[in-house]
Amino acid sequence: MADKVTIADVARVAGVSRQTVSNALNTPEVVRPETRQRVLEVVEELGYRVNFAARQMRTGRSKLIAIRIDPAGDGVNGSVFDRFLHGLTESAAGAGYRLLLYTAADDQKEIAAFQDLLGAYEPDGFVLTSTHHKDARTSWLLERGLPFVTFGRPWSEPADVHPWVDVDGSAGTEAATEHLLAAGHRRIAFIGWPSGSGVGDDRREGWRRALAGAGLDPAGLSRETPDGIADGEAAARDLLTADPDITALVCASDSLALGALHVARSPNPAWHAEAYRRIAVTGFDDTPVAKAIGLTSVHQPLTDAAARCMDLLGRALDGTPPGNLLLPPSLVVRQSA
Amino acid sequence: MADKVTIADVARVAGVSRQTVSNALNTPEVVRPETRQRVLEVVEELGYRVNFAARQMRTGRSKLIAIRIDPAGDGVNGSVFDRFLHGLTESAAGAGYRLLLYTAADDQKEIAAFQDLLGAYEPDGFVLTSTHHKDARTSWLLERGLPFVTFGRPWSEPADVHPWVDVDGSAGTEAATEHLLAAGHRRIAFIGWPSGSGVGDDRREGWRRALAGAGLDPAGLSRETPDGIADGEAAARDLLTADPDITALVCASDSLALGALHVARSPNPAWHAEAYRRIAVTGFDDTPVAKAIGLTSVHQPLTDAAARCMDLLGRALDGTPPGNLLLPPSLVVRQSA
Repeated sequence: MADKVTIADVARVAGVSRQTVSNALNTPEVVRPETRQRVLEVVEELGYRVNFAARQMRTGRSKLIAIRIDPAGDGVNGSVFDRFLHGLTESAAGAGYRLLLYTAADDQKEIAAFQDLLGAYEPDGFVLTSTHHKDARTSWLLERGLPFVTFGRPWSEPADVHPWVDVDGSAGTEAATEHLLAAGHRRIAFIGWPSGSGVGDDRREGWRRALAGAGLDPAGLSRETPDGIADGEAAARDLLTADPDITALVCASDSLALGALHVARSPNPAWHAEAYRRIAVTGFDDTPVAKAIGLTSVHQPLTDAAARCMDLLGRALDGTPPGNLLLPPSLVVRQSA
Repeated sequence: MADKVTIADVARVAGVSRQTVSNALNTPEVVRPETRQRVLEVVEELGYRVNFAARQMRTGRSKLIAIRIDPAGDGVNGSVFDRFLHGLTESAAGAGYRLLLYTAADDQKEIAAFQDLLGAYEPDGFVLTSTHHKDARTSWLLERGLPFVTFGRPWSEPADVHPWVDVDGSAGTEAATEHLLAAGHRRIAFIGWPSGSGVGDDRREGWRRALAGAGLDPAGLSRETPDGIADGEAAARDLLTADPDITALVCASDSLALGALHVARSPNPAWHAEAYRRIAVTGFDDTPVAKAIGLTSVHQPLTDAAARCMDLLGRALDGTPPGNLLLPPSLVVRQSA
């Protein structure tokens, strides 16, 4: 349906000339703000698709790449995005692009930010992070033929629906679990996020796969909790109290692992006088905190991921089929496991 | 001298019309890249000052604020800039601005980036971090009347030379040292950076001031080293070997403190069998690592500093005298001291 809408339809509904529609989309500085707003609303309402090939033919690329930045979190896991952002800025600079930051609290507000950015700055492309099931942002950009790449795979759509780079999270938790199995652990529990998130379910799946490979039953060994140090501590306490045979905890993040370590290292826990000596803990993301406290953790190649994102986006901008990439993580073994 | 140069001088030397000079500076998209480059070179060569008041009168503000982002460092102290950047993005969004990121390896490359940004995107202002003695960047922006604010005070110039926000570093190390004095420590050493940096010398001064206040001699109790975990470790080892009476180490950063803690907590150091039990260590910046390992550290109010920077820059853009602000830090006491 949407692909039958023409620029003439937009002009008619908005009550302006075709040239004004074109100006509102391509050179908004020559259009009055109210007019641009009305045109954009009609574009949205009718689902008019900007012809990306035609946009590409224009000479005046902005050389801007837009990326969302969130408020600072607990400071542990937030460092993942920050390292990605530093890497992306470098890679973008190498390709002659600069990054434009924006904020948005949810998908719909991020789509509103896309419209605002496209009107005001005409970024050449977008880099999206934190992909999730039924991601309204990628659908919106795809419908309009706007170039983008995601750091994070599409979780509900076919793998080739848009360009993306991701790190194989399940391979990471699988490697952590296999490392624990090789060290002789048999009761290995998992602390992760509530089911339903692509990233969280993927990390749990790696742990489950490793246990299955060793012929072990995962029943009763998994806990679901929001991400946070106190949450990891509570989940670890719950697991170790419920099952005194547990000797190792695989965690979906360094924040959770940090909380679990507080329990695992408690000098005199109620459930087992010697527990603190034998509970191995692994984290995920290899944050500076993991390095500082000797936490074994799954490392994501973030600088490489950022460079690959920029590479794929560059291909999209050049009209070359960009494809997608699943990068392998690596386990960094330290004192905690 | 520079203020006598007119747009007509630039046009004559560049061999173009006055309108072309104006276009090159204000609407670069309508000028050929080679022409713009030549005009910018002449502007720089002659020291032509863009009339900022006139720029302000233009209706089309870009609503962009430019800020430099550096490659990711050791991941400990880098979190300070990252927290500032998250805060600044939020504050800027609240004021209707977005951030434009750029990279630059030194002052001269950053000035080149200013020129490039001004030509391509016309940011309304700049936020500079990492101010230092004889800062060529602030001089360049001041000469051209371009609005900016620095996070970091001017170290070689009068305090009112340009708008800035800073955190009182010497008050932070003074508070850390006084905390140690109150706990009964008398031989308190300092591990900081090579003298000559404004920030580093300031932090050393706070420690010295606290010792002087207690009538104690700082001689032999200070070490200068590059910033890093291994550097902090080496400096702590050197200090504790040279002076077995030292019982506390005040460090200029959490990275240095983390290294110092490795020594302070070594189970059986050569210089003193019981040393690991009694060496107190303080850090600076209250990074996530400090929180995770129980390091007493000086906290900088980074979100507030970012909000104040945006506030001052907003005043500068409105033509209101912006002034400057020195914010107090706070000591976060944990297990390490």
